[in-house]
Amino acid sequence: MLTELLRNYRDRVEDQLQSRLSERSGLEPRLQDAMRYSLLNGGKRMRPALVYLATRFCRGSLEQADTAACAIEAIHSYSLVHDDLPAMDDDELRRGKPTCHIAFDEATAILAGDALLTWAFELLSQPDSTITAQIQLQMVQALARAAGDLGMVDGQAFDLNSVGKQLTLVQLKAMHSAKTGALINVALELGALSAEATEAETEALRQYGTALGLAFQIKDDLLDIEGDTATLGKPQGSDQARNKPTYPALVGVEQCRAWLIELQQEAVTVLEPFGSRSQALVALAQYVIDRDH
Amino acid sequence: MLTELLRNYRDRVEDQLQSRLSERSGLEPRLQDAMRYSLLNGGKRMRPALVYLATRFCRGSLEQADTAACAIEAIHSYSLVHDDLPAMDDDELRRGKPTCHIAFDEATAILAGDALLTWAFELLSQPDSTITAQIQLQMVQALARAAGDLGMVDGQAFDLNSVGKQLTLVQLKAMHSAKTGALINVALELGALSAEATEAETEALRQYGTALGLAFQIKDDLLDIEGDTATLGKPQGSDQARNKPTYPALVGVEQCRAWLIELQQEAVTVLEPFGSRSQALVALAQYVIDRDH
Repeated sequence: MLTELLRNYRDRVEDQLQSRLSERSGLEPRLQDAMRYSLLNGGKRMRPALVYLATRFCRGSLEQADTAACAIEAIHSYSLVHDDLPAMDDDELRRGKPTCHIAFDEATAILAGDALLTWAFELLSQPDSTITAQIQLQMVQALARAAGDLGMVDGQAFDLNSVGKQLTLVQLKAMHSAKTGALINVALELGALSAEATEAETEALRQYGTALGLAFQIKDDLLDIEGDTATLGKPQGSDQARNKPTYPALVGVEQCRAWLIELQQEAVTVLEPFGSRSQALVALAQYVIDRDH
Repeated sequence: MLTELLRNYRDRVEDQLQSRLSERSGLEPRLQDAMRYSLLNGGKRMRPALVYLATRFCRGSLEQADTAACAIEAIHSYSLVHDDLPAMDDDELRRGKPTCHIAFDEATAILAGDALLTWAFELLSQPDSTITAQIQLQMVQALARAAGDLGMVDGQAFDLNSVGKQLTLVQLKAMHSAKTGALINVALELGALSAEATEAETEALRQYGTALGLAFQIKDDLLDIEGDTATLGKPQGSDQARNKPTYPALVGVEQCRAWLIELQQEAVTVLEPFGSRSQALVALAQYVIDRDH
């Protein structure tokens, strides 16, 4: 049932992205191609799904959340394009396909990333009859804070500079909270905003998102050790090979598995007061720790 | 008198940028340092000045325009950091100082650019008691459209792919209109928005900006031929050396000089109906074609 819901949300945001991108045309078709290539590459669309799930949890409509779903995927997509660059993680493969700078070239990849990042804010600020200007503005603010030098970019910078260094657990958690947690949390926040959520709903989603984000990262680290290259779409063991700090390296694989279960329970507990509305989010927390890629 | 005004506006936006940046802190001080280095590097602050000039032209207050002035400089600054990267223009010198990726490293420069770009939208969406949410949202929209794949990034992509190619005058104008013109125009538009300008004021500023932007670029091309390295802060003749398409290469130096005078007259003519209010903008149009760097 969750699988079908996630597939529906994935298809929905893909349709939205396709049609919104197809309306665009600039001087340089190669730039548009690179944006399209990076955005429509068969990703899981986890962050848009979080937007939709949060909207539905808060009794909002999917229509109100479409723009936010597209915007957050544009941000996620830009971050992957820039992270893969030679000066950054230097990855040639992403989801089993050549990364943007390999399929195109490095300059085009830098610019496509810049364009996707900028597009996210263009989307969120477009005239929208389904939500108020005040809420749209709050969405822009939330996304900018989560994505920029107080959030994702900060985490990425810290990550790059900690390769080969021994981090404490506190530092590693802070890094991931910025690098991946901020975007997961803001996905839920955007969904809540689009539905004009109550304080209680927003706060529950915040706590849920923090647990979910940490679980997501721990699971990623475990998959890097345990998964295989074909399923992951990237070379297995690539974090280890680069001597990147990971949770399993710091606390051990067994401790990580126990931690995942704790986090899943925490995520479920904060949603309990909301009864059956939280069903899909509860199932998602289970899915995040069970997935094999 | 214009020189003093521009100095005041420059000092004003520098103070604003300094204080707004100093409030920030993330996990990675190196990222903050790179942002500060790139943003506070002694630029002319032409785009913030345009915001302030447009605001004053429309009888707005400078306070209402401060945030927009900072945001547009953040965008300009990010674009320079990314343009200078090895995969792009590969410049080691900017205003006589090492470029960001030389002073820091390439990964940090990519991230600092991303962070500055994102910060611009964070700034524009911050709670602001001096302007309405509706106008703030319009500012976000205008800046995103001017900066992204329909504007500056598109122009930069087209520019990179036209090195060594023979462009027509129409193509060259379209490229510069996207690459530098869009940001100049949106600076004036942000100033107009902050002052809740009339349609007539906004339209006059749009026409003025288009003439000014083209004049700015033609003058830049001329300076690349005629200026010297010390005054320009970059190697003289660098466009020629890279076989970049330029206006002088296409229509000749003499024709460019005549064109500059025509554009300056055009810029002045559209402002005439507004009388003495347009004095500073008129003087600026003269300054743009007279400058030696």
